[in-house]
Amino acid sequence: MEELTRILLQHPDVELSYSTSQSYIGKKYNEVYENFNKIFEQECVEENIEEIADKSDLIYFALPHGLVSNKLTSEILSKTKVIDIGADFRLKDKKTYEEWYETEHHGESLLKESVYGLCEWEKHKIKDASLVANPGCYATCSILSLAPLLKENVIDKDSIIIDAKSGVSGEGRTLNLSLHFTECNETIKAYKIASHRHTPEIEQELCAVSGKEINLTFTPHLVPMNRGILATIYAKISSDLNYEDIKNVYHKYYADKPFIRLMREEIYPETKWVKGSNYCDIGFKLDKRTNNLIIVGAIDNMIKGAAGQAVQNMNIMFGLDEKTGLNAIPVFPI
Amino acid sequence: MEELTRILLQHPDVELSYSTSQSYIGKKYNEVYENFNKIFEQECVEENIEEIADKSDLIYFALPHGLVSNKLTSEILSKTKVIDIGADFRLKDKKTYEEWYETEHHGESLLKESVYGLCEWEKHKIKDASLVANPGCYATCSILSLAPLLKENVIDKDSIIIDAKSGVSGEGRTLNLSLHFTECNETIKAYKIASHRHTPEIEQELCAVSGKEINLTFTPHLVPMNRGILATIYAKISSDLNYEDIKNVYHKYYADKPFIRLMREEIYPETKWVKGSNYCDIGFKLDKRTNNLIIVGAIDNMIKGAAGQAVQNMNIMFGLDEKTGLNAIPVFPI
Amino acid sequence: MEELTRILLQHPDVELSYSTSQSYIGKKYNEVYENFNKIFEQECVEENIEEIADKSDLIYFALPHGLVSNKLTSEILSKTKVIDIGADFRLKDKKTYEEWYETEHHGESLLKESVYGLCEWEKHKIKDASLVANPGCYATCSILSLAPLLKENVIDKDSIIIDAKSGVSGEGRTLNLSLHFTECNETIKAYKIASHRHTPEIEQELCAVSGKEINLTFTPHLVPMNRGILATIYAKISSDLNYEDIKNVYHKYYADKPFIRLMREEIYPETKWVKGSNYCDIGFKLDKRTNNLIIVGAIDNMIKGAAGQAVQNMNIMFGLDEKTGLNAIPVFPI
Amino acid sequence: MEELTRILLQHPDVELSYSTSQSYIGKKYNEVYENFNKIFEQECVEENIEEIADKSDLIYFALPHGLVSNKLTSEILSKTKVIDIGADFRLKDKKTYEEWYETEHHGESLLKESVYGLCEWEKHKIKDASLVANPGCYATCSILSLAPLLKENVIDKDSIIIDAKSGVSGEGRTLNLSLHFTECNETIKAYKIASHRHTPEIEQELCAVSGKEINLTFTPHLVPMNRGILATIYAKISSDLNYEDIKNVYHKYYADKPFIRLMREEIYPETKWVKGSNYCDIGFKLDKRTNNLIIVGAIDNMIKGAAGQAVQNMNIMFGLDEKTGLNAIPVFPI
Repeated sequence: MEELTRILLQHPDVELSYSTSQSYIGKKYNEVYENFNKIFEQECVEENIEEIADKSDLIYFALPHGLVSNKLTSEILSKTKVIDIGADFRLKDKKTYEEWYETEHHGESLLKESVYGLCEWEKHKIKDASLVANPGCYATCSILSLAPLLKENVIDKDSIIIDAKSGVSGEGRTLNLSLHFTECNETIKAYKIASHRHTPEIEQELCAVSGKEINLTFTPHLVPMNRGILATIYAKISSDLNYEDIKNVYHKYYADKPFIRLMREEIYPETKWVKGSNYCDIGFKLDKRTNNLIIVGAIDNMIKGAAGQAVQNMNIMFGLDEKTGLNAIPVFPI
Repeated sequence: MEELTRILLQHPDVELSYSTSQSYIGKKYNEVYENFNKIFEQECVEENIEEIADKSDLIYFALPHGLVSNKLTSEILSKTKVIDIGADFRLKDKKTYEEWYETEHHGESLLKESVYGLCEWEKHKIKDASLVANPGCYATCSILSLAPLLKENVIDKDSIIIDAKSGVSGEGRTLNLSLHFTECNETIKAYKIASHRHTPEIEQELCAVSGKEINLTFTPHLVPMNRGILATIYAKISSDLNYEDIKNVYHKYYADKPFIRLMREEIYPETKWVKGSNYCDIGFKLDKRTNNLIIVGAIDNMIKGAAGQAVQNMNIMFGLDEKTGLNAIPVFPI
Repeated sequence: MEELTRILLQHPDVELSYSTSQSYIGKKYNEVYENFNKIFEQECVEENIEEIADKSDLIYFALPHGLVSNKLTSEILSKTKVIDIGADFRLKDKKTYEEWYETEHHGESLLKESVYGLCEWEKHKIKDASLVANPGCYATCSILSLAPLLKENVIDKDSIIIDAKSGVSGEGRTLNLSLHFTECNETIKAYKIASHRHTPEIEQELCAVSGKEINLTFTPHLVPMNRGILATIYAKISSDLNYEDIKNVYHKYYADKPFIRLMREEIYPETKWVKGSNYCDIGFKLDKRTNNLIIVGAIDNMIKGAAGQAVQNMNIMFGLDEKTGLNAIPVFPI
Repeated sequence: MEELTRILLQHPDVELSYSTSQSYIGKKYNEVYENFNKIFEQECVEENIEEIADKSDLIYFALPHGLVSNKLTSEILSKTKVIDIGADFRLKDKKTYEEWYETEHHGESLLKESVYGLCEWEKHKIKDASLVANPGCYATCSILSLAPLLKENVIDKDSIIIDAKSGVSGEGRTLNLSLHFTECNETIKAYKIASHRHTPEIEQELCAVSGKEINLTFTPHLVPMNRGILATIYAKISSDLNYEDIKNVYHKYYADKPFIRLMREEIYPETKWVKGSNYCDIGFKLDKRTNNLIIVGAIDNMIKGAAGQAVQNMNIMFGLDEKTGLNAIPVFPI
């Protein structure tokens, strides 16, 4: 939430009423995150969801899965809007959720109300939603890269492979030896191969977009860097399509989207070009030797992949310009 | 200048008229720095100093030493203000300049006019200046950490040792094997020991502040990170001074300075807490066993140590609020 | 060659006669690489291939492509053995070479004599070879991971996708802005998508092993770390195969190979576990939802991917135990 | 101990009888550290100090302070030699220990027997010792850099400032948020300023060498890299000394020391030049403007600063060549 706090503090239409915490109750925000000295020195308070719902227009949750669905009620949602940055309301199908998250879902009734907050594709629904499920970081990058191609039927839906690479900030702050500097510095690894929980989320949304059932292979990797996600995506393509055809497909859906940048031919996204911003950069290459289309998508996992998109969702929910508070230019080198 | 461009584009009172370049003439800005796609796509043009002076209120120079003093004239300065991010006008003494930079200085007459742009200490002069010499990155961090102590006479002026550590972005973009990733990753080194060109700059300004001649030892180090400068500074102190005494000295000079943050007791600056911002964080510890005062200062070398301070100088020169365009909150982790 | 020098100096059966150089003639080795102080202080000399061939049993070349094929002759090969760490003799087909390397090949007659030095698969030929082409780093990792599966026909040969990630040391020491620390630190990118020169090398050797023509998609990525290659490889597999089947295929070919380590089930290679060693670690996972087999291979690109394999080739060529001088245990964390 | 295991496994005269563990009892060594696959697959056992003492010639301890002094007895030492890599027997003065470690010392009788294992200075005592206290990493680098100068009286003993920088591996593997990748990557900080426990250790040994009481200022820093310590040391020097004088002092003590390398004039140590080796590199510069001598020392904190020196101590204790098993050449870039 620290990145969300940072963005919200610079948002012209937001006033931060409460910062709740489980670990830091009574501590000032800047004592937890020294970057906020002289900027935000509010005390972290215990969560009192009823009181907060009464006094706030919007609550952001960022909790381990299972917790939000347990405590959220229609009554709360009648008083305030909610954006859940966690995973509880991303999967519409209770069974799929329970299979991948290996726990029961206690908020089935709210599942129907909730909207998957991928702003570029679900804006019309987000507008009127009370409960928005902010997409996962890998999911955001993957769906944005693939959706136009599936919607326009230019790739073989059964051939999709997503090889994604993430910086370590995606892993959160829970104590974990495998996140120690010496464990993840100067090395790269694949993890949760073919079993990462963003897989059904990607499939669900690509299915929603294209109307077809999708099963794909998703492999996340941990890269020794703080931020950024790069998704290298492979799909079979009809041999008669060329660069311009694909480009036109992307333009059709993204030309008017402020946070999507299609790279010029032969230029591919790098995570450094989006760091600190809400952009998703997309590039692609046709491999004529194999009829594979290789798509590369890049986002800042903490911004477009989490806090930034959460603010974009808020803007849409409250009728603000989508870009408000999100105009930071990518910073390089940082 | 890329970082300056980024900040200026987000400055409410600035319009960027020209981006000149020696290497990229005719290229669009976003083709050189892909982070500027959809944001700033102006073409880089050849420098035509007369034309630019005619049409602009301010010119920023960021050139290797020797070049600005060669081309700058009083005539140009009569048409436009100038901030030189390079080193040509930092040292007031021509001889000192020529000794440390091993080259003749061709702009002696302008040297007298120029103002050393350390905003927290020279604001009154910067206000009316036509030519401001933007301080060096190490110099900014070192002077800000030391000046109050010398001004108030609490440290032995002959005992000062500055052990500074910088990220690699401080080295610029000139082709250089020693800046290759594999050369500077996973290692730390001291360089230009007791011979770095920021030494006389620090001494000059500390002398200006305190009225005493200063000779100090300065050792820069290269640290495997993109950004940030940490200066660990040592000076002998009278044994009867305590924490509160030192704290009061800093408060006296910095309580009203928006970009200086004094850390709480036992909390010390880390470069990560200032990254992406114009802050200079300062902390200190008394070593009662040796009567050394250890001061730690931290800045983002690209912002407070270069582009940010250059914008702060501009704000002051044009009567704007010093903080305009510089309100970015430090980003963590990035 | 610096890594090769390090390994050779610790090899019990090797005496280093000459270190030639184009850039450092007359300099001592330890003046170029300070890690060799007190260890190897021989002067770098100009290359005199005839003289060296007369006096040495083996010459290692590590030159940009085109140079070795230009100067190497049968006469030289009649006097000394040669291991070419560069690319000139890796591709057996002159036309394929010229297409991918965009330059003429001037050593066609020697192409036939040369042996592709992938020790685990070509040992019988390497034994008697005078000219060995040391495989490329990506190629080594990819072929070792795939060859048993293709030889045993368990994967669909037309479905292979290799998504490879490399540390920056693979890029060499030629001056290059894109290799500067600040350009490749804290970011990841794909490059030479579907056009990297190791592609035909991988295809050639997999064809040699399996007897079938192979066309595959290969995407290299640059990762902010010094060393290591991780190849994540995807291929379609018959739905009736299970974990044990695949494991048995690998065991059949690699159980007796000292430098191949098959990971335990659910454990996947990470580059940190092989750093500083000549090992290639291999793990795999079946994705039952898509019938993709995901294979992960990891090597130290500087050792098994270059200097280590070059020494392994030498050992085989001279009838030594393959492991001589290559028994270094992977170092962690380094 | 993992690094010690690696070195001992490559030592020609050592057989590893037991690997004890508190956290991993019953696990195979290679399941804890996957780099040991196929190399060392012994099971980790519970510590049974009596049994181990009976069957082993040497026990290495690497435990948090307080634990070894609690369990070690003269009886055990009558059966086996001991090298304590921890801190319990480094400080000869019980009171100093208790002050800096804030805990009682329960092994006072053994304190007198124990020898401080800085091989280059205490070899004559180590030879006959049963209990050797392996020096701390910062202490090793600092003492080696300073001892000759103090012994020869060329620096002012009251002016010493040690500004040390360490990679993160020095912090061990105990779960700790501040050691998470995102917390210590891309930042530098000072910590335990003027209060680090290696301070009295450095002072004690410099006193032992020079016969004078020493009080110095020591500031450690955490650098975003896995390995390496760089100590930048400042001391006042008489103005009539020159480069050659200092060089001669170092030569007098270190010319015959296999693991000390004095750099050439104007060349300074970098941690990358010693990584993976037992070397300590030393360079220095006279600052004629301030009469400060700046000494730079570098070691691999895991080797000369811990496991390597522990093996060097063992070699000396058992009458082996000091260098046995420690001939690894520094690896670059790694």
